[in-house]
Amino acid sequence: MTVAVAGRPALDLAGLLAPRSIAVVGASPGVDRHPGRAIANLLRTGYPGRIVPVNPKYQDVQGLPCVPSIADAGPVDTAYVLVGADRVLDVTRQCVDAGVAHVVVCTSGFAEEGEAGRAAQAELSRLARSSGTRIVGPNCIGVLSPVDGVIATPTLNIAPRLLPGTVTVVSQSGGMGVNVVNLATARGLGTRALVSVGNECDVDVADLVAALAGDPHTSVVALFLEQVRRADAFVAAVRAARDAGKHLVALKVGASEAAARSSLGHTGAMTGSHDVFRTVMAEEGVHVVDSITALVDIADLLSRGVRPAGDRLLVVSPSGGECSYAADRADAAGLAVPPLGPEPYARLRDLMRFGTPGNPLDLTGAVIGDPALLRRMLDEATAGDAFDTVLVALPTWSAHDAERLLPVILDAAAATRVPTVVSSWSAGEMTSTVERLLRESDVPSFTDTDAALHALGVVARPPRTRRPGPPGAAAVPPAAWGGRAPAEDEAKRFLAAHGVAVARETLVAPGGDVVAAAAGLTRPLVAKQLCVGVEHKSDLGLVAVGLSTDDDLRSAVARFGDAVARHGLEPHGVLLAEQATGTEVIVGGVHDPDFGPMVLVGAGGVLTEVLTDRVLARCPVSPDEARELLRQLRIWPVLDGYRGVRHDVAALAELVSRVSHLLAGAGWMAGLDLNPVIVGATGAVAVDAVIHVREDA
Amino acid sequence: MTVAVAGRPALDLAGLLAPRSIAVVGASPGVDRHPGRAIANLLRTGYPGRIVPVNPKYQDVQGLPCVPSIADAGPVDTAYVLVGADRVLDVTRQCVDAGVAHVVVCTSGFAEEGEAGRAAQAELSRLARSSGTRIVGPNCIGVLSPVDGVIATPTLNIAPRLLPGTVTVVSQSGGMGVNVVNLATARGLGTRALVSVGNECDVDVADLVAALAGDPHTSVVALFLEQVRRADAFVAAVRAARDAGKHLVALKVGASEAAARSSLGHTGAMTGSHDVFRTVMAEEGVHVVDSITALVDIADLLSRGVRPAGDRLLVVSPSGGECSYAADRADAAGLAVPPLGPEPYARLRDLMRFGTPGNPLDLTGAVIGDPALLRRMLDEATAGDAFDTVLVALPTWSAHDAERLLPVILDAAAATRVPTVVSSWSAGEMTSTVERLLRESDVPSFTDTDAALHALGVVARPPRTRRPGPPGAAAVPPAAWGGRAPAEDEAKRFLAAHGVAVARETLVAPGGDVVAAAAGLTRPLVAKQLCVGVEHKSDLGLVAVGLSTDDDLRSAVARFGDAVARHGLEPHGVLLAEQATGTEVIVGGVHDPDFGPMVLVGAGGVLTEVLTDRVLARCPVSPDEARELLRQLRIWPVLDGYRGVRHDVAALAELVSRVSHLLAGAGWMAGLDLNPVIVGATGAVAVDAVIHVREDA
Repeated sequence: MTVAVAGRPALDLAGLLAPRSIAVVGASPGVDRHPGRAIANLLRTGYPGRIVPVNPKYQDVQGLPCVPSIADAGPVDTAYVLVGADRVLDVTRQCVDAGVAHVVVCTSGFAEEGEAGRAAQAELSRLARSSGTRIVGPNCIGVLSPVDGVIATPTLNIAPRLLPGTVTVVSQSGGMGVNVVNLATARGLGTRALVSVGNECDVDVADLVAALAGDPHTSVVALFLEQVRRADAFVAAVRAARDAGKHLVALKVGASEAAARSSLGHTGAMTGSHDVFRTVMAEEGVHVVDSITALVDIADLLSRGVRPAGDRLLVVSPSGGECSYAADRADAAGLAVPPLGPEPYARLRDLMRFGTPGNPLDLTGAVIGDPALLRRMLDEATAGDAFDTVLVALPTWSAHDAERLLPVILDAAAATRVPTVVSSWSAGEMTSTVERLLRESDVPSFTDTDAALHALGVVARPPRTRRPGPPGAAAVPPAAWGGRAPAEDEAKRFLAAHGVAVARETLVAPGGDVVAAAAGLTRPLVAKQLCVGVEHKSDLGLVAVGLSTDDDLRSAVARFGDAVARHGLEPHGVLLAEQATGTEVIVGGVHDPDFGPMVLVGAGGVLTEVLTDRVLARCPVSPDEARELLRQLRIWPVLDGYRGVRHDVAALAELVSRVSHLLAGAGWMAGLDLNPVIVGATGAVAVDAVIHVREDA
Repeated sequence: MTVAVAGRPALDLAGLLAPRSIAVVGASPGVDRHPGRAIANLLRTGYPGRIVPVNPKYQDVQGLPCVPSIADAGPVDTAYVLVGADRVLDVTRQCVDAGVAHVVVCTSGFAEEGEAGRAAQAELSRLARSSGTRIVGPNCIGVLSPVDGVIATPTLNIAPRLLPGTVTVVSQSGGMGVNVVNLATARGLGTRALVSVGNECDVDVADLVAALAGDPHTSVVALFLEQVRRADAFVAAVRAARDAGKHLVALKVGASEAAARSSLGHTGAMTGSHDVFRTVMAEEGVHVVDSITALVDIADLLSRGVRPAGDRLLVVSPSGGECSYAADRADAAGLAVPPLGPEPYARLRDLMRFGTPGNPLDLTGAVIGDPALLRRMLDEATAGDAFDTVLVALPTWSAHDAERLLPVILDAAAATRVPTVVSSWSAGEMTSTVERLLRESDVPSFTDTDAALHALGVVARPPRTRRPGPPGAAAVPPAAWGGRAPAEDEAKRFLAAHGVAVARETLVAPGGDVVAAAAGLTRPLVAKQLCVGVEHKSDLGLVAVGLSTDDDLRSAVARFGDAVARHGLEPHGVLLAEQATGTEVIVGGVHDPDFGPMVLVGAGGVLTEVLTDRVLARCPVSPDEARELLRQLRIWPVLDGYRGVRHDVAALAELVSRVSHLLAGAGWMAGLDLNPVIVGATGAVAVDAVIHVREDA
């Protein structure tokens, strides 16, 4: 199945990965420069197609006849462009004219280098759009496909023997893409292909993922991303790939301020909000990881079908110290290490000559003398659906013990009822036999117990997928706002009109009678002096709480008057509201420029900025989905009736859902903050509200 | 300098590590069993001393004359005991009788195996105490000293060529101790010695650390711990080692419930509180780490003198993707990646043909063509004290680029003003040249960018050392308590008498006149119905807040009466207290069975159990030290006047200090909880108090 992306032709993935002929424009004789390296790689790996070096300066390159220009090259499926940046446009145009299907521009010096580079890159984009040629790059390391036997990347720093496999790597960074393939190869994980998309003047990550949805050779797509350029197309492609049964794991840089600065420098990419990216990916079923090691490890587990049904881990080791260590680290990785039940305990007790059965299960030295014992022990321990996955953690064995013990252990691991992984610390040369045996085995393995547990923790807790429903009716901003951000009372009236519960309140115009205005409200009251352009009212003494008597009200208003005069403010009125009691949460949202409206819930009030306790979801969310979001908060136990204090979670979930529908229907909003929303025993009401209007709305 | 530990002779470390003669009792011919492996290791590594196999079954073992018993062995410095558990006592006794200085009992099956094993181990302890012989083990892998050329450990799973160095590993787990040495060797880090102390029937970690304080060959002590058996001696030894200029890094297992179960199983050790251990170690200047990799990496950095003056990191890489990646991961590791200042920016701008200078600093391909450029760039970027440390992150280079580029880069790294580390992803065979060059270099290096940043993050933020002053006067529990835990009013009176601020309050005896009793208190008031044996009063409706009028008071007491009758409780009285307003914190403490009195501060009220936002310190703390503790809390910004709301931090710090002095002087307390203490604009008062009395007090 191939998914066409709106406005572009579908990528001919098979053609891109397995060209029958490859021209290298700018070809050079040695391997000191990139063009020579591309040719050397093709020759070294026995590329069966036609290789055409193109360079007017040479007759012959690395034993191959060299032609002066692409026009002289005969029919060419793919051209690698490895000339100086100033000549790339001309050369690419010649390739287009020659009818080359795919042009891979490796040369850098385009959008990542400022204005002139951006203009040149835009010209490359136009070339691609106005022709049948697809362009990969510029500023990339190209394409390789071990499955098709095509290794044309212009780098020597690629593993000499790449293993064909089912993991396809798509990377916006050439260097990191190559690193990922090399790390995968070193751990025995085969690669279906690597496509380094560089600056994405034409072919981008969305194109690739959409095409990979239909690639029979790909089981896992591993993404290294710096920026998502066409978010809608990317999400559609991811969804198509998931629907086609592919697994995806993604690492996106730019979470830190410094990385965002760097990314800006080297790809001209504005980095979006990392939290939003993680949320959208999780909802679409993509594992998002933070480290290169995890990217490779999780691609490995997913490609081997390791998907535990839950998080209950059995830890097994012949070393007691490693048992305790792995149990600690499993806990830190979010896995459960539950005790053995009485029946497996009794059966293991009978099997073991020394030690005490448990989880972690210390095999003691006994298994060294009788390695077949492990299989019986694993059988007994995993009987009765007590565990979802097993880790067998081994010491740094040298060749003698590795050859004697490891095959039996790997057989036992392969025969276990539930997914079982083996870890054995890499200690360089002395553990080379262990590492070879692990690589050659079909049993998933790690050379670091921590990496094993981290990866198991990720696959044992798959992303919480959801696809938001359609947005509701459009919500039009009141004409009275005149395109500006509304005052608090205006924002709340707007919210109330859209079904969002707000505190019962009334606005008293400047000079109005507060006592008369308070007549319909239940005391105690809160009074806020609204002023034009003032957001943090309490900092200026413009908020009074716990007002019970008429005198309380009058003296609060008098104090406000003093503060307004002192700070030279323009008063908008006094807002009188019923004082709510309960727990403070924040409910808000943003209109993400890439991924659209997102709703947020989190700890409210002063805790909002202190705790970073918040979760996001794409809008809209149903009340049930809102409740699921609330459950992910650290403060959830408080909302859930900690110490017998009831909270109306249903009302809060309803409020969150309504806010999310409002956001989904109000593209003109940059975002909104209801902070706090007070959740009481009955009801949940917004007691403050700020609505941000997009500058371009 | 050698530190004698109270009640024990100081360990003869030099004698233990460099015996002139070694007997192996239970010697066997091949290498399939442990005794044969010990002899094989001694022979293989060219041990210059005398090796005496002891076994009545053989005349000759591995080409050495074998004697029937230790009595026939002649003078022996160290005896390895590798016989069955049932024969260990007899054999050890013979060694003691023969005047052997050190007996290393590797055999397992002692305290880790239940009651009979514990009794046998106690007998070993008595043998040691009643003789001049020191016993290491049982259940250990023995001792090795690459510096002295003595490798007698009975395992084949030890790196074939150990590097002499200055890191000494002391491990309670034999397996993990060997792993640590093997991992260190693989990364080019030399080992001074490994001592596996096993079940510590005699020689323990405290003995070793005390002796290592005086070892001229040791610069760093790396500890793998399951349990601290003599906490006072251990802390004294650590302090002596730090005072002698040694650096210490420790990993202790048992943080998770499962690990604690495991540790119980295999060493018979009760695992103490991990938070307490971390706190005490930090106060004594020990780096506590969570992973084996970090243990080795940080020992490496410390032994090479990498101790950045701060946390400002310059990230440098020829790959833009790696630049962003490393910046993100540095942020996650707690390092700062500040932007370049305008002057270095301008100077680098002049040096670079492509790209834009920044931090991270993308070297682009330019440095590949001109590796010497790196040195000039590092010079410019680190001028003017802008950075405390530098990471140079390299791609997976194969031999060609490694040989051409890496030596120049390592020279540049070695010449940089501030500590500079190099990382280069390990990709197995293809990066073997990189790894060899890194190992051979004096520049600290890592084969994983994440590991490099984690280790730099640890050494850039050294432990906050402090040594608590002497405890104050002893605080005797009032006789009226009769040895039981006091009621809330009794606890508060006791605290007040020791200078701890509590809410102004009065106890009204059952049936007393609450309105009359309230006369001296400022309203609103809080009323609590105290009942015998009831801790969570609010769960049972026994707390009323915001009582302003006499009617409020009377109706609250009436409701209490109903609740007391309904639940069949025994009333102790009604506590009337002035209602404090402010932020809730918890102030408490425990008397740790190993490390003594510890004071705790944290987020209070419902947040206490939701957030895990708390810090510990050994008692007593001064008010200034208490303020430092408060600064480490996540809620510190709230206390520090977030949004202009003032909090009396001085009063809170005073209260914490007084609680800590009280705890230090009250060994009969198991612990106490003041939750919440309410910190207002003026003052900080405990409004609830529970004091736990030790069962054995």
